[in-house]
Amino acid sequence: MSLENIKVVLVHTSHPGNIGATARAMKTMGLNQLVLVKPKCFPHADASARASGADDLLANAQVVDTFDEAMGDCMLVLGLSARSRKIAWPTLAVSQAALTAWQCCQNQRVALVFGEERIGLTNEQLDRCHYLVQIHANPDYPSLNLASAVQILSYAIYQRSLDDENPSRGAPGVDGETMERFYEHLQQTMGDIGFIQGPDSVKLLRRLRKLFNRAKPDQHEINILRGILSAAQNYRK
Amino acid sequence: MSLENIKVVLVHTSHPGNIGATARAMKTMGLNQLVLVKPKCFPHADASARASGADDLLANAQVVDTFDEAMGDCMLVLGLSARSRKIAWPTLAVSQAALTAWQCCQNQRVALVFGEERIGLTNEQLDRCHYLVQIHANPDYPSLNLASAVQILSYAIYQRSLDDENPSRGAPGVDGETMERFYEHLQQTMGDIGFIQGPDSVKLLRRLRKLFNRAKPDQHEINILRGILSAAQNYRK
Repeated sequence: MSLENIKVVLVHTSHPGNIGATARAMKTMGLNQLVLVKPKCFPHADASARASGADDLLANAQVVDTFDEAMGDCMLVLGLSARSRKIAWPTLAVSQAALTAWQCCQNQRVALVFGEERIGLTNEQLDRCHYLVQIHANPDYPSLNLASAVQILSYAIYQRSLDDENPSRGAPGVDGETMERFYEHLQQTMGDIGFIQGPDSVKLLRRLRKLFNRAKPDQHEINILRGILSAAQNYRK
Repeated sequence: MSLENIKVVLVHTSHPGNIGATARAMKTMGLNQLVLVKPKCFPHADASARASGADDLLANAQVVDTFDEAMGDCMLVLGLSARSRKIAWPTLAVSQAALTAWQCCQNQRVALVFGEERIGLTNEQLDRCHYLVQIHANPDYPSLNLASAVQILSYAIYQRSLDDENPSRGAPGVDGETMERFYEHLQQTMGDIGFIQGPDSVKLLRRLRKLFNRAKPDQHEINILRGILSAAQNYRK
């Protein structure tokens, strides 16, 4: 299970309740590796209370003294930050971060790092992150609770994992067979109308596959697209 | 501002801390209309503490006695539910629910309804909802905290509002001008190759716009698509 390669690292957390709430948020989204860097109070009754049925994550949490120990063997480190920074760190939106984390965790370890509640990650800690993840929030009040930020990022990663399990989940889309027939028709048409010849066609078609896979067309849209292709093929006749 | 047309309705909430945390979650995502149906304890110090800087939402919260009063003038009522139900209610995933809520709130009132923490919405309450919203969570532990569920749905709606403000936000996509030129080219080509005539073309083009807007093509992909359109137009010559 690749989600096991993802750990959530809380740095210098002040309120033990937030540690418990984070454990609960993680577990609802299939994450279970919690690392605490020098928490102010842990273990604590507030942590256990807020963890609810995720107390196993607290029991198994790794408590370490330094940021570097927490990072350990992680090949991808994503740091959450609400504050905007003067220095332009490479930044990912949540959806991009979720995709990046999901791809990486297939065979490598990933850390999602959350700073102290009030001040967030320090610049020195951000230096150790490969990307800063930005949750787009109300500019007048972007102050997400720590566990809420964990919830949003964990949710996005978990949805990504479900998309991979079942690409047509939830979407009104069509099955893979229908998409393949559409791609064959597209390739045929591109040849017929003289748009592609030779080896470039493979790369072009791969690019178009990505585009249409992102759009997840439904049956009606596929019908429209194939109607256009047929019309183009028949144009000369 | 259309987000003002969205209210969050908490039904029979047991823990005042969850009311405060919900207010905070809402405000970070630009929502500010909070309605409480017979809360167990409110106002309460725990609510104020967890609301943090969103205490204005608590001060302005509408407290009512019945579910019906809370619904009032809402044209769209979405009910959150973690439990799976024996009766097959019409169900939306979070992304679909966000889109539906965002579209509706442009000119009508919308309610997002959350049941009591332990039991959720009753079947009688769900009967009053147009859709049940399902947050896809870990099947072994789907027990999201109330405010976390509010956070996820509010986040999804807020991102949808940002997408509308700035369609190319975050994505590698192209600007609106480039998309418009592509749609003109598409429409022109559909006419040239004899695919569309008459009033149907407006509806078809609107559908295709939705499809390509979802895909958010980048400049390279637009170049490929327009290359195909040009080839189709020139096919007869």
